[in-house]
Amino acid sequence: MTAQQLYQQILYKKSFLCVGLDSELTKIPAHLRTEKYPIFAFNRAIVDATAQYTVAYKPNLAFYEAQGVEGWQQLEQTVAYIREKHPEIFIIADAKRGDIGNTSKLYAEAFFNTMNVDAVTLSPYMGRDTVQPFLEYPGKWAVLLALTSNPSSADFEQLQLNTGRRLYEQVLDTSKSWGSTDNTMYVVGATKAEMLRDIRAIVPHHFLLVPGVGEQGGSLHEVARYGLNSRCGLLVNSSRGIIFADGSENFANVAGEKARELQQQMAGYL
Amino acid sequence: MTAQQLYQQILYKKSFLCVGLDSELTKIPAHLRTEKYPIFAFNRAIVDATAQYTVAYKPNLAFYEAQGVEGWQQLEQTVAYIREKHPEIFIIADAKRGDIGNTSKLYAEAFFNTMNVDAVTLSPYMGRDTVQPFLEYPGKWAVLLALTSNPSSADFEQLQLNTGRRLYEQVLDTSKSWGSTDNTMYVVGATKAEMLRDIRAIVPHHFLLVPGVGEQGGSLHEVARYGLNSRCGLLVNSSRGIIFADGSENFANVAGEKARELQQQMAGYL
Repeated sequence: MTAQQLYQQILYKKSFLCVGLDSELTKIPAHLRTEKYPIFAFNRAIVDATAQYTVAYKPNLAFYEAQGVEGWQQLEQTVAYIREKHPEIFIIADAKRGDIGNTSKLYAEAFFNTMNVDAVTLSPYMGRDTVQPFLEYPGKWAVLLALTSNPSSADFEQLQLNTGRRLYEQVLDTSKSWGSTDNTMYVVGATKAEMLRDIRAIVPHHFLLVPGVGEQGGSLHEVARYGLNSRCGLLVNSSRGIIFADGSENFANVAGEKARELQQQMAGYL
Repeated sequence: MTAQQLYQQILYKKSFLCVGLDSELTKIPAHLRTEKYPIFAFNRAIVDATAQYTVAYKPNLAFYEAQGVEGWQQLEQTVAYIREKHPEIFIIADAKRGDIGNTSKLYAEAFFNTMNVDAVTLSPYMGRDTVQPFLEYPGKWAVLLALTSNPSSADFEQLQLNTGRRLYEQVLDTSKSWGSTDNTMYVVGATKAEMLRDIRAIVPHHFLLVPGVGEQGGSLHEVARYGLNSRCGLLVNSSRGIIFADGSENFANVAGEKARELQQQMAGYL
């Protein structure tokens, strides 16, 4: 998918929402846990209820790997289900992988060929070797961590370099020339919305994936104010605030309502 | 396993070798590829041939994930096989994971409970939140990337901070207080052996996992010279130089010989 195609979906749905499928087994409604594939049953219901309001889904792999082989099966089932029912929706494997060339190639193969997602989140620590193999698949995307929303992003991401820049600013500036606005995106934590202005000065045209609106304290208004560009340029993620908004048998309807609320706010900013 | 227990294994086997199980399906001998579980069949033969010369195995997860669910099954089979036949051997999941608290907890559960490995490699980019959950399992280890051996480690790891330090030096210095020498280890690339002296000044007592001896150009002599401490403090990894040394039906015997050669060199440094 190109950036323009993603933008067209955003215009069509009047939404730049990404629903995070952080489908932790112990948190899904009790009545589903007796199913053979409880995580997939949960995800399928969430997808059915939210697909019309969202342009992207983002399963975080930790919640699947925690279940071993069965978790991977259910992740594959989920991706296949979204692909079949909603081929227009952008799927991001939130894997935060990062390894060197030879190995990175295999990760790219795993996610882009075997699993057939559109994008993978990557940690930039090891440099370009980590990212390059992901940029060699037409229509696929690397989503690099830049500034994350967790408290300990101060430990290293925000360290000041001898040039006066912060590490995350250097990550943006160095990596933006590796690919293009059609295959590179950045994770920028919404709890630092005011920093979005400075980030936009470095990467004005790239899509930004903004986690943490809602449950992690970010403000959609602030994110839209500083983050929107001429092709939207934002995917704003909400996970627990949608998928775990209700723990009863009515969970999917409530998730759909929560997604719709965010979509309607977003429509106002577009 | 404590650092002392690891050291005792090193003394017993006169080896600080770690065999990297980078068991890429397309590279394993042709006669195994018709097996139902070709990667596991390959690993089992490699383990049988090398276990007496090595104190650790390190499967890199990319090579398993690239095969989807079947890859994960074969990784679990491999870990279970090593655990059963050689319970004294330290198993490192080379996963280079890194996510925030809630998610990181699930990764720790996936690797330490579901898969039952001893250690996981982690990317430090997102800071302490990434690492903390892995330090809460007694006897288990976090292996943090510090200075890697790939060319693009210069992109970010080696950037100079406004304090005059390199980023990787700051990673070592900041993170060494999060855990202890009994649950924290560092990845230090062997192609920069002379940097080991400076690294040892920051973390004199920690174990270092040194990849890249052999195929990536590192010198065992240099690594031993600058890296050894009073409890050895080194695990030196070799992957392709052992497991893919021979592509015929005789591959396991050759792998065993290669591991033995390294073990005998190591015995001389202990």
